[in-house]
Amino acid sequence: MKFIAENLTKLRTISPLVQNITNYVVMNSTANTLLALGASPVMAHAKEELEEMIAISSALVVNIGTLDEYWIPSMEKAVKIASDLKKPIILDPVGAGATKLRTNTALKLLDIGNVSVLRGNFGEISALLGEHGKTKGVDSAVYDNNEALNISKNASKEFNTVSTVTGPIDYVSNGKEIYSISNGHEMLSKVTGTGCASTSIIGAFLAVEEPLKASVSGLVTYGISAEMAFEESFYPGTFQAKLYDWLYRIDEKLILEKAKVNRIDI
Amino acid sequence: MKFIAENLTKLRTISPLVQNITNYVVMNSTANTLLALGASPVMAHAKEELEEMIAISSALVVNIGTLDEYWIPSMEKAVKIASDLKKPIILDPVGAGATKLRTNTALKLLDIGNVSVLRGNFGEISALLGEHGKTKGVDSAVYDNNEALNISKNASKEFNTVSTVTGPIDYVSNGKEIYSISNGHEMLSKVTGTGCASTSIIGAFLAVEEPLKASVSGLVTYGISAEMAFEESFYPGTFQAKLYDWLYRIDEKLILEKAKVNRIDI
Amino acid sequence: MKFIAENLTKLRTISPLVQNITNYVVMNSTANTLLALGASPVMAHAKEELEEMIAISSALVVNIGTLDEYWIPSMEKAVKIASDLKKPIILDPVGAGATKLRTNTALKLLDIGNVSVLRGNFGEISALLGEHGKTKGVDSAVYDNNEALNISKNASKEFNTVSTVTGPIDYVSNGKEIYSISNGHEMLSKVTGTGCASTSIIGAFLAVEEPLKASVSGLVTYGISAEMAFEESFYPGTFQAKLYDWLYRIDEKLILEKAKVNRIDI
Repeated sequence: MKFIAENLTKLRTISPLVQNITNYVVMNSTANTLLALGASPVMAHAKEELEEMIAISSALVVNIGTLDEYWIPSMEKAVKIASDLKKPIILDPVGAGATKLRTNTALKLLDIGNVSVLRGNFGEISALLGEHGKTKGVDSAVYDNNEALNISKNASKEFNTVSTVTGPIDYVSNGKEIYSISNGHEMLSKVTGTGCASTSIIGAFLAVEEPLKASVSGLVTYGISAEMAFEESFYPGTFQAKLYDWLYRIDEKLILEKAKVNRIDI
Repeated sequence: MKFIAENLTKLRTISPLVQNITNYVVMNSTANTLLALGASPVMAHAKEELEEMIAISSALVVNIGTLDEYWIPSMEKAVKIASDLKKPIILDPVGAGATKLRTNTALKLLDIGNVSVLRGNFGEISALLGEHGKTKGVDSAVYDNNEALNISKNASKEFNTVSTVTGPIDYVSNGKEIYSISNGHEMLSKVTGTGCASTSIIGAFLAVEEPLKASVSGLVTYGISAEMAFEESFYPGTFQAKLYDWLYRIDEKLILEKAKVNRIDI
Repeated sequence: MKFIAENLTKLRTISPLVQNITNYVVMNSTANTLLALGASPVMAHAKEELEEMIAISSALVVNIGTLDEYWIPSMEKAVKIASDLKKPIILDPVGAGATKLRTNTALKLLDIGNVSVLRGNFGEISALLGEHGKTKGVDSAVYDNNEALNISKNASKEFNTVSTVTGPIDYVSNGKEIYSISNGHEMLSKVTGTGCASTSIIGAFLAVEEPLKASVSGLVTYGISAEMAFEESFYPGTFQAKLYDWLYRIDEKLILEKAKVNRIDI
């Protein structure tokens, strides 16, 4: 998977400005993730400045993790502006399925703009499909590799986007191809905002690659960094510090050695 | 104190969803604290989704650390909903006594719902009592172990809740019994949000235990984790990373060995 | 530079309360920075409580990093109150030049109150001067040591404040004198909020020293701490943890040994 290694080098060469409208919980860790990797984060949400900020950015990340009446219009405006400016957009529908507000907000954002990548876990993407009558909904969303693959494929077609379903195995689909990725480590589930971080990393790769391969590049890079971090620490606090270290240290050689990716035609 | 050890195992078995309306400063560290311990944090504050989110949660944490005109109604609504749904509530009146807005907001939240546990430091709980004419107010709140014990007892009776006053020695009272806890480490005062973290940990224990013993369980678990962290690092940055490590590593054996708890009938 | 060492000891003796209205991304790291150093952070933004909170604080930090329609009036009110109460104010115009909202908000805050210190990077301070017709604006803001020195001097005169321009070499000017500071480490650029942290540290020194020397004291203390941290870790995650450690460990001896400061009359 040479393109992943090459994309990492490209990303570090241009250090793309990635504009994030994300949740309060992960703003700090997301910014540190992007900086360690070699990108340039910016976080701006005031409606008045969105157009200028998106115009100078290479990609827009929208994450609905702590949405409210003020931030939702800001997310909507950002998605419209980025679509108009033809900037790539990645959407993280945090908690879709848990509340109607989250499900409906994510669906509206998918509807009003050209979202390049939709990145969520199994339950979240299932819930979005469920609202479209395509699954039995979040209550039936018991994880299963085969089901995750199907959901990735279906969400891609339904929402006309690259759909990235992360879990023990990650599935990324553009409706025609699917990549499965087995990198990563379960210790990531003991640190907050690691899903959100993977979304922002894909956002950074969108500056140098088309959405399907950008998603694969981001997930592999983050996953290998987590594997390396776990070799140095078995516990979540020091693991998190080492994770930033490895996002900074990871290089082409490590990616070529450790990437676990399969490509499937559908 | 076998119940503490048993509660930790119960908590990890069910991994309770703990809904937090907390302050911007500590959202990330609180989420990491709950994850490391074995609970599942969620942070939602939009009035529109509070009912759904609280319905699926095992406990509600309300922390007024960065309150404002928007968030106060959200806190009030959350406390009412949780009371109606009979979910346990823990309130952290950050900065009560420092400004009228904080004192009055905390008192109103105590008034409108069934707060299971009130967790604050000596000055904060003194200030709340002071507004009720029970002490000379925060200006006279010079810490003293005996006074802290009295304030815990009085706040419990005055506000009809379990009152947890943390400091060099922590006092927890339900008005009939008092527990004193001597675990913890002064290095906690060099890391932001450790008081708030202890509040959220008690919130997690409220999912498996009644409020008095849940408070004792939370404070002992957090305190011992801090003691272990300090054995590995004497400085605040690496101490904080080790603190998460030990919240993950702490087990029944360590609790039985290290708990410093006394129970007093009153 | 004996005054720097002495100021650090004074700061730790009084542990000044520093009131911050800052951005969501760095609230946690800023609070940890101030605590590790020996100051007492508070973060309050509700208009209703600003007067009480500023009255008990030793300095006000205003950072516009995630400004919006709600927070801007809060920043304005805080600057007015602090000016009236003769509390020192430090302003961090994050992103000035990137959007009109940021440039205009920073200029308005400079206009309505007595800002003691303006702390920004080369591009930000250039942009503020540019709007005043004093430079060609942010587009021409290619970093250059000599230009940074001039901008520091000019901003000081233009805005009648101490102007602190940070970069590979930091320049601090009150319009009559300039200090240049060569402490610090480039790894700081791989951790989010380190510029904001230096602003808050200067805020803490404003409690014990006049603005010019407070700025020098803050930048030297932070810069040496970063140098020491880098001796213990070459990567950003563990570097950040070590940075807090060294803010706690740094002492008069280390400052006298490692300070790289020059004073120039102009």
